Amino acid sequence: MKNNELVRSKTPLVHCITNYVTVNDVANILLACGGSPIMADDIVEVAEITAISNALLINIGTLNERTIESMICAGMVANKKNIPVILDPVGAGASNLRNITVKKLLNQVKMSVIRGNLSELSFIAGLNSNTRGVDSNESDNINNPVEVAKTVAKNFNAIVAITGAIDVVTDGKRVAKISNGVPLMRKVTGTGCMLSAVIGAYIGAVSEVFEATVTAISSMGIAGELALKRVTNLGTGSFHIAIIDEISKINDDIIDDFKKVTYEK
Amino acid sequence: MKNNELVRSKTPLVHCITNYVTVNDVANILLACGGSPIMADDIVEVAEITAISNALLINIGTLNERTIESMICAGMVANKKNIPVILDPVGAGASNLRNITVKKLLNQVKMSVIRGNLSELSFIAGLNSNTRGVDSNESDNINNPVEVAKTVAKNFNAIVAITGAIDVVTDGKRVAKISNGVPLMRKVTGTGCMLSAVIGAYIGAVSEVFEATVTAISSMGIAGELALKRVTNLGTGSFHIAIIDEISKINDDIIDDFKKVTYEK
Amino acid sequence: MKNNELVRSKTPLVHCITNYVTVNDVANILLACGGSPIMADDIVEVAEITAISNALLINIGTLNERTIESMICAGMVANKKNIPVILDPVGAGASNLRNITVKKLLNQVKMSVIRGNLSELSFIAGLNSNTRGVDSNESDNINNPVEVAKTVAKNFNAIVAITGAIDVVTDGKRVAKISNGVPLMRKVTGTGCMLSAVIGAYIGAVSEVFEATVTAISSMGIAGELALKRVTNLGTGSFHIAIIDEISKINDDIIDDFKKVTYEK
Repeated sequence: MKNNELVRSKTPLVHCITNYVTVNDVANILLACGGSPIMADDIVEVAEITAISNALLINIGTLNERTIESMICAGMVANKKNIPVILDPVGAGASNLRNITVKKLLNQVKMSVIRGNLSELSFIAGLNSNTRGVDSNESDNINNPVEVAKTVAKNFNAIVAITGAIDVVTDGKRVAKISNGVPLMRKVTGTGCMLSAVIGAYIGAVSEVFEATVTAISSMGIAGELALKRVTNLGTGSFHIAIIDEISKINDDIIDDFKKVTYEK
Repeated sequence: MKNNELVRSKTPLVHCITNYVTVNDVANILLACGGSPIMADDIVEVAEITAISNALLINIGTLNERTIESMICAGMVANKKNIPVILDPVGAGASNLRNITVKKLLNQVKMSVIRGNLSELSFIAGLNSNTRGVDSNESDNINNPVEVAKTVAKNFNAIVAITGAIDVVTDGKRVAKISNGVPLMRKVTGTGCMLSAVIGAYIGAVSEVFEATVTAISSMGIAGELALKRVTNLGTGSFHIAIIDEISKINDDIIDDFKKVTYEK
Repeated sequence: MKNNELVRSKTPLVHCITNYVTVNDVANILLACGGSPIMADDIVEVAEITAISNALLINIGTLNERTIESMICAGMVANKKNIPVILDPVGAGASNLRNITVKKLLNQVKMSVIRGNLSELSFIAGLNSNTRGVDSNESDNINNPVEVAKTVAKNFNAIVAITGAIDVVTDGKRVAKISNGVPLMRKVTGTGCMLSAVIGAYIGAVSEVFEATVTAISSMGIAGELALKRVTNLGTGSFHIAIIDEISKINDDIIDDFKKVTYEK
């Protein structure tokens, strides 16, 4: 079976500790791509919820002191049970709380995948990050995405994905570059959060994490392209809905037809 | 006046203590069906907010220790003032926190309606519940929905609705079975939460709780059918929006034309 | 440059401490109108986040004791750094917690703009407010919007906007009345929250706060009119999405063509 078919046949349960801004989209995109969402963030129950899940998504978009502990606890349970964890370090570099939390999480939890924009990953790599808010800010960032991604991948022994005009995925050695997607996706809040959730579903169903991550990112970009083709200039509200539509209809044939992925060593 | 007309003419205010995943849809579906939402979950204000409302919705989807107390407090105020309460025990059976909370709520608050899927209600009935996450999981569940619903209805002196491929409503004696709805509704997060909110609006406006619940469930299923007919294969994002559309346009004539309800004793 | 062009060219970052019901729409409408959202509500990080922002939005829709402190802290930082603050006093008059919080906020933070419905602003003006929940309730309210708005504007030295069938904006002397918009907007939750966010983006980019507020309100009303023209009777779900669509496409020419604003002294 190919990756998308694996997701749709296994219906991986993804435990999401995520921000309240985009949580509805995260749940809907998980259902659309073939996964199943469960949201729970109270310290008293996260261990149990993670234990029945196939993947854990940690997204720090609207961090608060109550949920930080829950994230670490859930992450430790996931590690113990070999459940893959994906970290979306939203806004890393933008505040001390986010910076400290990202460091804590990376110290205490082994991540399978870390996905963010160049500013966020630059911060994690220990470089000047130029973060302005939570939106990607490529043009102002002088760091090289491949180098940043490789550094973080090696430092934390994880698959790292930096998404932007061209997305980069690396395990520290292999590099995949994905040029699917359209710029209008930046005008919909949470396309990054949704992508991280989709990656969560893929790594909850597919054992080869590097390829699962590449397929997930590619599928999201393709969904953006197909959505834009369909709604053209209706506006960003319709485009938002159309992205979820396209993810709900995507399959491995569509992904194979439209994917724009190149590999480097 | 028939039930939907009653809702639209009275505009019942429904106080919702609900999860942050589907809260926007809950608010919009309440406006769409003719009600009016108010969300408030801080212990300091819930008593006052419940007191001015026509119904109280308690949904434990993203439970945390802060809001449990608020739920109980609001529920007790509602009971004192004869304001009907509907409980949506999302994920009951999936964690100790949810299990203990559901028991606490049922011990301390008299519910007018309890609505959930077969796993959740099986847990409340004291049966093996096979809960996997928060999504309905009928095929794996060996319990009989009518028996489970009757048990819970008698134990807690409430109207019980178990929703699934065929929905069951009972007061412990009378049984209504509703076969409206389409399977694709399971691919949109929160159709259950939205339904509970719609029931809240109906029981906030209609004094006959059993029939109000049947009409509300039927209307939601019909909305799903009409939505699917309109968007056909656009995808789950468009289907989601179309469900809210159809609820906003539904009336008693449409409900009478499309409802598939049978009654047993 | 005209106001909308200023917003789109400056991409003001708007720090939102807002309710979890409509937060996704708030973020998407900010992106749609040309701004950039950042949500953060933990007391530990709000000062830093406000400091990098161009405007601060405080919306008390789902107030809790944890975030009240954050609102005050963020507001004080904004004042110190001359970052404009907009207050949306959702549900003021409906509970003691909201009433006390609004008073605290107005005592400790200088607001650039206060936007709400007639009930909420009547409460702030010290008048009988007749609040029933969080939705506007004009017909039951005997207060005169212009008088209420002027009183609050003078008392708190702020631009005050009372939105309803006809919107009123005043600085205490000048009065603008805006009659854009359609009644169906009341059937979508959060059109008020979204409008406050749009005002936040405009005052984050335009120095003339009175005119920025008038343009923002007018643009939202026009978006509602164009949205309704496009989706006609599809339903409130589609109308909701279409409002965001139209805001994403609006420009100063459209605003000039469709605005219905009259000025009084």
